[in-house]
Amino acid sequence: MNRQNSNSIMEEMKDNGHSGRSMFLESISVEVPAARYYYALQGPELEVLKETEEFLLPLDKKWPFLLRFPNACFGMCIGLASQSSLWKALATTPSVAFLHIPPQINLVLWSIAVCTLIIVFSIYLLKSWYHWEAVKREFCHPVRVNFFFAPWVACLTLAVAVPPIVAKSVHPSVWCIFMAPLFGLELKIYGQWLFGGEKRLSKVGNPCTHLSVVGNFVGSLLAARLGWMEVAKFFWAVGLAHYLVLFVTLYQRLPTSETLPKELHPVFFLFIAAPATASWAWETIFGEFDTVSRISYSIALFLYASLVVRFNFFRGFRFSISWWAYTYPMTSASIATIRYSQQVTHPVTQGLAVLLSVIATTTVSSLFVATLLHAFVWKTLFPNDMAIAITTKQVSKHKNYDHHLNNKSKGIIRNSLDLMRTTVKAHQARLLHSKEPPVYPDIHQSPAEQEHQQGDNSPACLDSIYNL
Amino acid sequence: MNRQNSNSIMEEMKDNGHSGRSMFLESISVEVPAARYYYALQGPELEVLKETEEFLLPLDKKWPFLLRFPNACFGMCIGLASQSSLWKALATTPSVAFLHIPPQINLVLWSIAVCTLIIVFSIYLLKSWYHWEAVKREFCHPVRVNFFFAPWVACLTLAVAVPPIVAKSVHPSVWCIFMAPLFGLELKIYGQWLFGGEKRLSKVGNPCTHLSVVGNFVGSLLAARLGWMEVAKFFWAVGLAHYLVLFVTLYQRLPTSETLPKELHPVFFLFIAAPATASWAWETIFGEFDTVSRISYSIALFLYASLVVRFNFFRGFRFSISWWAYTYPMTSASIATIRYSQQVTHPVTQGLAVLLSVIATTTVSSLFVATLLHAFVWKTLFPNDMAIAITTKQVSKHKNYDHHLNNKSKGIIRNSLDLMRTTVKAHQARLLHSKEPPVYPDIHQSPAEQEHQQGDNSPACLDSIYNL
Amino acid sequence: MNRQNSNSIMEEMKDNGHSGRSMFLESISVEVPAARYYYALQGPELEVLKETEEFLLPLDKKWPFLLRFPNACFGMCIGLASQSSLWKALATTPSVAFLHIPPQINLVLWSIAVCTLIIVFSIYLLKSWYHWEAVKREFCHPVRVNFFFAPWVACLTLAVAVPPIVAKSVHPSVWCIFMAPLFGLELKIYGQWLFGGEKRLSKVGNPCTHLSVVGNFVGSLLAARLGWMEVAKFFWAVGLAHYLVLFVTLYQRLPTSETLPKELHPVFFLFIAAPATASWAWETIFGEFDTVSRISYSIALFLYASLVVRFNFFRGFRFSISWWAYTYPMTSASIATIRYSQQVTHPVTQGLAVLLSVIATTTVSSLFVATLLHAFVWKTLFPNDMAIAITTKQVSKHKNYDHHLNNKSKGIIRNSLDLMRTTVKAHQARLLHSKEPPVYPDIHQSPAEQEHQQGDNSPACLDSIYNL
Repeated sequence: MNRQNSNSIMEEMKDNGHSGRSMFLESISVEVPAARYYYALQGPELEVLKETEEFLLPLDKKWPFLLRFPNACFGMCIGLASQSSLWKALATTPSVAFLHIPPQINLVLWSIAVCTLIIVFSIYLLKSWYHWEAVKREFCHPVRVNFFFAPWVACLTLAVAVPPIVAKSVHPSVWCIFMAPLFGLELKIYGQWLFGGEKRLSKVGNPCTHLSVVGNFVGSLLAARLGWMEVAKFFWAVGLAHYLVLFVTLYQRLPTSETLPKELHPVFFLFIAAPATASWAWETIFGEFDTVSRISYSIALFLYASLVVRFNFFRGFRFSISWWAYTYPMTSASIATIRYSQQVTHPVTQGLAVLLSVIATTTVSSLFVATLLHAFVWKTLFPNDMAIAITTKQVSKHKNYDHHLNNKSKGIIRNSLDLMRTTVKAHQARLLHSKEPPVYPDIHQSPAEQEHQQGDNSPACLDSIYNL
Repeated sequence: MNRQNSNSIMEEMKDNGHSGRSMFLESISVEVPAARYYYALQGPELEVLKETEEFLLPLDKKWPFLLRFPNACFGMCIGLASQSSLWKALATTPSVAFLHIPPQINLVLWSIAVCTLIIVFSIYLLKSWYHWEAVKREFCHPVRVNFFFAPWVACLTLAVAVPPIVAKSVHPSVWCIFMAPLFGLELKIYGQWLFGGEKRLSKVGNPCTHLSVVGNFVGSLLAARLGWMEVAKFFWAVGLAHYLVLFVTLYQRLPTSETLPKELHPVFFLFIAAPATASWAWETIFGEFDTVSRISYSIALFLYASLVVRFNFFRGFRFSISWWAYTYPMTSASIATIRYSQQVTHPVTQGLAVLLSVIATTTVSSLFVATLLHAFVWKTLFPNDMAIAITTKQVSKHKNYDHHLNNKSKGIIRNSLDLMRTTVKAHQARLLHSKEPPVYPDIHQSPAEQEHQQGDNSPACLDSIYNL
Repeated sequence: MNRQNSNSIMEEMKDNGHSGRSMFLESISVEVPAARYYYALQGPELEVLKETEEFLLPLDKKWPFLLRFPNACFGMCIGLASQSSLWKALATTPSVAFLHIPPQINLVLWSIAVCTLIIVFSIYLLKSWYHWEAVKREFCHPVRVNFFFAPWVACLTLAVAVPPIVAKSVHPSVWCIFMAPLFGLELKIYGQWLFGGEKRLSKVGNPCTHLSVVGNFVGSLLAARLGWMEVAKFFWAVGLAHYLVLFVTLYQRLPTSETLPKELHPVFFLFIAAPATASWAWETIFGEFDTVSRISYSIALFLYASLVVRFNFFRGFRFSISWWAYTYPMTSASIATIRYSQQVTHPVTQGLAVLLSVIATTTVSSLFVATLLHAFVWKTLFPNDMAIAITTKQVSKHKNYDHHLNNKSKGIIRNSLDLMRTTVKAHQARLLHSKEPPVYPDIHQSPAEQEHQQGDNSPACLDSIYNL
């Protein structure tokens, strides 16, 4: 059916006449360069379109649901899975046994997390099916690409957090199934850092990149649980090497990463995730919270402290689904503290474990409520996803090259618009053809209220998508 | 009285009429960006004003003593404290017992160091009291800011070096008192690296930044002496993480750190300080000069060697008070070598320990004599401190924009000058009011010999400070 | 005779009249800045002259053999030496004893490697003697400079790979003789990173720089074999520190290292060399393939995997002598795997050891055959070495400043041309004087077929070298 999709695009192209062939080629090779995202977008997660930018899709109406469903939703899965893991640790670690946490909480949270993961995964599969172009664009987006690691991290975390009632441990094949795509992605992404011209780390590095490193430690942790110590050490080492590079790169704040938001953001919490998980993984491998674990944990704790004192920086932001990713660091820090308190049982460590667990759980609960409210009450959880709507080429500066702009960039935009329009057309044609009910009803919510603004640079012609 | 200071500035402002309000606002928010220091200053420690620059204070006469007293003076305290620590190690380590060093040397040096610290601390407190603006400017200065770590490092070193006759060990509360401000500064400064737009490490990083890292290891060392092993490991880990980032950053010599002096300088010796101290701290924590200590020590030794072979680079510079900071690395390398020779007792290691100790002691003695000569004989120890005298905004290039400069930057300078003038005025008014004797006599040394150069760009109007 | 060389240049200069003195001074101080190489050259190893560039030597004919003999030839020695080392490991390690490798292979390969090293070393000595200027230019070349480490790495590897029949172990003095120049070079090169204005790591860093780090680990390995554990640990630590800096720098792909080739290349394999050797050295020091060895080995293995999956990037390049350097990483990874399989004897590790050994041996064999073919059949092994032929100053852009170019850069080129011409003249004069047979016969192969293109910017006047 994906073939069919391409075919219908091709037919569409032929209908368009002379420019069909070249446009199809362009649609194959269209890879938005990383710098383009930085140029066209702003905001903490590069999700706000700059005013000077042209757009592929109309901004004044809601897009199809699948196009508005970002892969950042997998952050929610990680958050819930790690929360379940935290309550397993609270229920089973002797040093916090005085809390008398029932193991059922772990079970309930785990079930919720599994359900959420299945739902999100299914929806995203549908998106990949129907809007492969949008998925590709997320893969090119410097922030979003890291969320492709998220489903596998969530799966691995769920495997770690599996309630003892459900299973004593997972089967080794589970590890293999979850690690295979993660390892493949690593080879791809780390290779881009190393070899890629455009996607070098000094350009694309941002706190979300931590998501691409943390998987190594979670995988290492699960491997150690399964008794695959050599494999566990391998992934721990790989994680260490890349965390090192990333930590230094992000701490330096290279001049090329100028585009990091001035408005600070929970995104920085991701700094904590890798060292916290690393300390836990190391303990699981060597059976003791030894010096390496302690060093790793101390770094996590210091970073936590240096974030908490900047409390003011983390307020006053619009809620977004990707906030969920920031719950994982908090939770992993809590778990590491619980493990540490098991090694060094002392009121201070125990108190810290409880405190951090309370903070993590409160945060997750608040986010959960907020997410439900945004999703079902205010229906604002999925705004238009600007990250996938930028044009492939940069618009020239207005001031100096007004005439040039009018002549040149118009053509580019038209091409891009045509491309996206034909994609959507093809999709709708397929929908009509297969007689299946439309997946996203809101596409027909406002069928004929478009105003055709036939200005030169306006993307008004896109409205015809809806008028088709 | 600090309040009163602000108030008198405000009154002053009101007297100035219409521009008062905006200038007061400016005086609150005035934070000189780091790049500005790099632009306006040159020399190994950014302490020489570039010729093209305008200045806030008259260059042709001596400023008040307190304004000329830089926080780099705390380097002297570190140098003396570490020297005292070295002689304690020489007197108490079995592997160098053949030298028969009497423990009294430690006592004498320690007393001198404590006295020096008290004197410097008192003077700097006075400076903070009377010239808060100047202290703030030192805090914004990319090199100077690191010397704010120096007093606490000196205190911790003194606590480590405490002569056995005075006390077997220090009370844990001493550690807490000294570490609290250091930890606070770290959260502030490291946070600026991570979050700050202007003060990112890739811009402000310079060898002096090592001073901000070395405190962790000294704190770790003292904590280990007190038996707080977990705390010691925590700070060791924090130090490791940040030394790592700093080491890589400084070794890379990023293009943004272009402004590092071509005239090389003892400042590079600071590279040695952190690994040398780290190896000693690790040995104190784990009771053995083990592999980690050896790795850390080896790095320090190699860096030492690579500095020593560049002997020629470290000659021919004007003496300055901040040279004292460079004695700490030498001394810490000597101590680490002594500890190493205790682990691996061998003529080579013992000889190296003696050699390095001789070098360190010779250096400190020479500096001590030089300092005394400069202070009391030649009276040149405290030249005008250019680091605090730059204007807040950049002067345009002379050649191309002469007219533009005459119109625009004049205004900027006048504002800045007015600001500083009113500060000094307020201070003098307060002096008159409180009937206390003037702290710095030289302000009245040359009361009426100013020449009013009423050129366009000259800061001549500042002379009125003295004519007041 | 080197003196004499200088003298004859001086005499030559005097003959040239008025400009003699200044040109001689220039010839002394001529140090081509690193950035100049990046500007003037392109290609994977900066060995292809850009089209816009002027050149010092005629491109349309073969230069003297010694001028075409790059120091990259030492890569061949490293490759053969490490191959010999691999076969020693295969013959002596119990975990791969099932292969029944006869120890004679080690002996044969070792002999070949020793012979090759002697030949290459001798030729390069001749080059240093006759073309000191060219050697200096190789020392300034950001890629080539690293090959100055290669002979010592090759020597140390040969000492490690010494067949048990020849000697049980080498004499400690051998270690000292080989490590002394390597240590000296390190102090020089690492110092340049740290202090040098032009040669900072963020500018000159490229995968070949790994060659300058790997020597530490090989030296450490040999020292451990000799029982000098403290020395071994020292060099291991030095190697670690600098590998760390280099690893992070190269992984970041700083914006300043923009000039790295888009056409990817075996050069990236050098990433593997240092961690693989480090893991082996650590095992030799501590007598066990412990956690540090494993971490180091895992990093090497992951990098290997991430290179192998990019197989397509490593095809389709013109063969060059420097490819030999890339065999060392493969071989060292194989040896590390053999050592690992000795620690963790398991079909997987044993299979991996055999697989990697086969890959490494196949690669080396192919390169050996290719080298012989290029050297003796096609006689294309040593093309003109562009890396030493660039002018010292940059040619302005043609398009905008045509007139400016004609006036200004002509003078620069003439000076440079004159300089090189007089060097070659002096050399030939010396040849005539000493009545020794010409070292490179091809200088007389095409004596009088030059066409004098007396265009403004052409380096045609250089032809007179051959007409002399």
